[in-house]
Amino acid sequence: MTDSWATFGVDLHLELTGPGLRVGLTDALRRAVRTGRLAPGTRLPSSRTLAVDLGVARNTVADAYAELVAEGWLTARQGSGTRVAPRSVPRGEAKPAAVRRPRRSGPTHSLRPGRPALGSFPRTEWLRASRKALTAAPHEAFGYGDPRGRIELRTVLADYLARARGVHADPERIVVCAGFAHGLMLMGKVLRGRRVQDVAVESYGLEQHWNLLVEAGLRTRPLPLDGLGSRTDALGREGAVLMTPAHQFPMGVPLHPDRRTAAVDWATTTGGVILEDDYDGEFRYDRQPVGALQGLDPERVVYCGTASKSIAPGLRLGWLVLPDAMVEEVLEAKGGNDWMSSALEQLVLAEFIASGAYDRHVRSMRLRYRRRRDQLVAALAERAPGVKVSGIAAGLHAVLELPEGTERSVVQAAAWQGLALDGGSQFRHAGVADGRDMLVVGYGTPSDSAWAGALDALCRVLP
Amino acid sequence: MTDSWATFGVDLHLELTGPGLRVGLTDALRRAVRTGRLAPGTRLPSSRTLAVDLGVARNTVADAYAELVAEGWLTARQGSGTRVAPRSVPRGEAKPAAVRRPRRSGPTHSLRPGRPALGSFPRTEWLRASRKALTAAPHEAFGYGDPRGRIELRTVLADYLARARGVHADPERIVVCAGFAHGLMLMGKVLRGRRVQDVAVESYGLEQHWNLLVEAGLRTRPLPLDGLGSRTDALGREGAVLMTPAHQFPMGVPLHPDRRTAAVDWATTTGGVILEDDYDGEFRYDRQPVGALQGLDPERVVYCGTASKSIAPGLRLGWLVLPDAMVEEVLEAKGGNDWMSSALEQLVLAEFIASGAYDRHVRSMRLRYRRRRDQLVAALAERAPGVKVSGIAAGLHAVLELPEGTERSVVQAAAWQGLALDGGSQFRHAGVADGRDMLVVGYGTPSDSAWAGALDALCRVLP
Repeated sequence: MTDSWATFGVDLHLELTGPGLRVGLTDALRRAVRTGRLAPGTRLPSSRTLAVDLGVARNTVADAYAELVAEGWLTARQGSGTRVAPRSVPRGEAKPAAVRRPRRSGPTHSLRPGRPALGSFPRTEWLRASRKALTAAPHEAFGYGDPRGRIELRTVLADYLARARGVHADPERIVVCAGFAHGLMLMGKVLRGRRVQDVAVESYGLEQHWNLLVEAGLRTRPLPLDGLGSRTDALGREGAVLMTPAHQFPMGVPLHPDRRTAAVDWATTTGGVILEDDYDGEFRYDRQPVGALQGLDPERVVYCGTASKSIAPGLRLGWLVLPDAMVEEVLEAKGGNDWMSSALEQLVLAEFIASGAYDRHVRSMRLRYRRRRDQLVAALAERAPGVKVSGIAAGLHAVLELPEGTERSVVQAAAWQGLALDGGSQFRHAGVADGRDMLVVGYGTPSDSAWAGALDALCRVLP
Repeated sequence: MTDSWATFGVDLHLELTGPGLRVGLTDALRRAVRTGRLAPGTRLPSSRTLAVDLGVARNTVADAYAELVAEGWLTARQGSGTRVAPRSVPRGEAKPAAVRRPRRSGPTHSLRPGRPALGSFPRTEWLRASRKALTAAPHEAFGYGDPRGRIELRTVLADYLARARGVHADPERIVVCAGFAHGLMLMGKVLRGRRVQDVAVESYGLEQHWNLLVEAGLRTRPLPLDGLGSRTDALGREGAVLMTPAHQFPMGVPLHPDRRTAAVDWATTTGGVILEDDYDGEFRYDRQPVGALQGLDPERVVYCGTASKSIAPGLRLGWLVLPDAMVEEVLEAKGGNDWMSSALEQLVLAEFIASGAYDRHVRSMRLRYRRRRDQLVAALAERAPGVKVSGIAAGLHAVLELPEGTERSVVQAAAWQGLALDGGSQFRHAGVADGRDMLVVGYGTPSDSAWAGALDALCRVLP
């Protein structure tokens, strides 16, 4: 066990070998450059700093640097210090330190659903909230966190969700998670822990969500869907049901009030759990808002909210509002610690909501999406009058009914023209025999400059 | 399926019922306040805004507000608008929107290990990096992310890890994760997927890490530990070994060079995987840095790094540097998407590293921790000369050997004095029969103002 008393180590990890200090250092540096460990352009510490770090004379370092400059491995220029010389980097070795941007690729346009307008991320307001949160955060916020998530965020969420979504919320029954997917993983674990085997799901939805339940050891069984939403009368002995009551994804229909009541009755009678995925509850365009189902029975419904549609998926922030009796189970499933969600980002979101910036952002996005929706509907009415549009009272996508047997060819034709589209079959549960031909068009995603082109491309491929 | 064409919905979720619009609105607002859905102090929208939202006349809203002010449910004041009146909030209902601070509780001092100096979080530099990252981020960064993590972060990490830790890294074999725990969860899944059943671990370590492996369906088997580190000759038919080669946690011994080679030989011979937990590799105080074991055989060693000790655990950012052949398996374990890590925070860390702020922070923290260590050693030499200190060439904690049979009473006596301490038994694997009495003292955690008091309290309870 070493307990030598020495100066602090070096960030430039060098192994000094060889006959003498200077030769050893020169060799070590040369090896680091040659193997690509030190990338071209990397600025080396000043000879004085490195000498102190290594506990050697400054001249030793200066000599080694000079030798490697002479050999062409390093460059030394007044004002920019000593750097690794530029050269072609062998494949598979380290690249220069400069922040590299990813290349853009893929189709020219995309009208695939499920993503908000990424170009509208509220950068200025988010930075303002970051400044405030960073200044105000208590020291302990930077440590390992409460598995429930930061109390600051849970407190403002409880208020916001009650006010805006009719959720019966209080901070003690909210658990912050890294977006809806993480929340669903946790719920899968909890349900398995309760010996649940089957979960009813909607016959249209996202396969990746169903897969998360399957990975937790559960089976999914699709409920029939009609114009009033999922057929709650088909609920049986499943231990839970996953649904999107406010705005069925992707069909766009809100769950009929009678069925909302029926779902809660089913839960009460059978002891089942309702998982309410309120992914885009904020974006409703008609007069009467559809509140959260959770308000009907907070002890039977797990409300799952997310910032992924209202702000951006890249934040990875979501929240569960849980029945009192389930909080401990979820915390245990989380592993007794907040392993996943950045405390800082939770504090920023708390500040963003508390300052009113969240409400303003949602309002402005709602206007934007509604305008988009109106433009989509107008364009279709003019250029593809045979196509029926539905599911447009809310959200960021619409359903376009297609003539029988044409879905696949329309999606294919769009792809050839550089337009990415999703057909309805994309969202159909494997347990559903067949369904209508349709497109699920996400109108929120394209940038303002791309929107007209995307809309035009869509109209061109429609029958 | 509703497809009414109407103005946008309201963030103030109200259900209008009752005989007339005004009465309905008044009732709905009153109900919302009474049940606590609208918290005391909440500012309501202006009557003009709410009227537009609801599609009713402005006077209708103004009348409803006036009535509720008269009834005492709301207050109206020049300049601060209409608000919900203050009153005592019934238990279990929503609290006011103001960001609430958690209360401080627990012991007066803590010298438990595993946490960096939270008071030294580089707030200013982090905010500067946030500003730059938020300005420079491409729009797509706010969307669903590459399961590998942001390329910007992986690129600077590859450079940094090669330079500072001797890791053979390139961006394509790095996968970003939400801290070490998340990385270990992923590796547990991957190992189970490869039909591994047993993982060798060190006989001292963190139970919560072993539990993550157990939860993945693996068994853990402790390796004997001596003054040269874990006994690699005891490695057998396990499919993997989890170790802390640079600075054994908590014993503080670096793995002897011969055993480093032996571990890699074992991996090559048996096809086993080495999980290298490099939790505090940056904080080394003697001249010769101990580079990452991964450099010896990048195809056999999974390097696990984290920002939890070098910056703060609250960030939840870590990284795996993987054997080429394992990258796809880890991405699959991750679920094919970056469900966990905030893209924004990844970009901020990339900027923080690329700008040199990370190096500066590590250097300054290294000085700070070394000073703390020196003070600890000096205080013990003076006030508890019988106590042997070890494991102090690196990291944020030291091991204090205690006379046989005294560990428990020392920890207990400390607790009575308001000092939280961890005894060595805390970190002993259940499969290890018994061990020496000791304390594992984390000297990085206390604030500057608390440090002298904590040190004094420690010396007072030592035998």
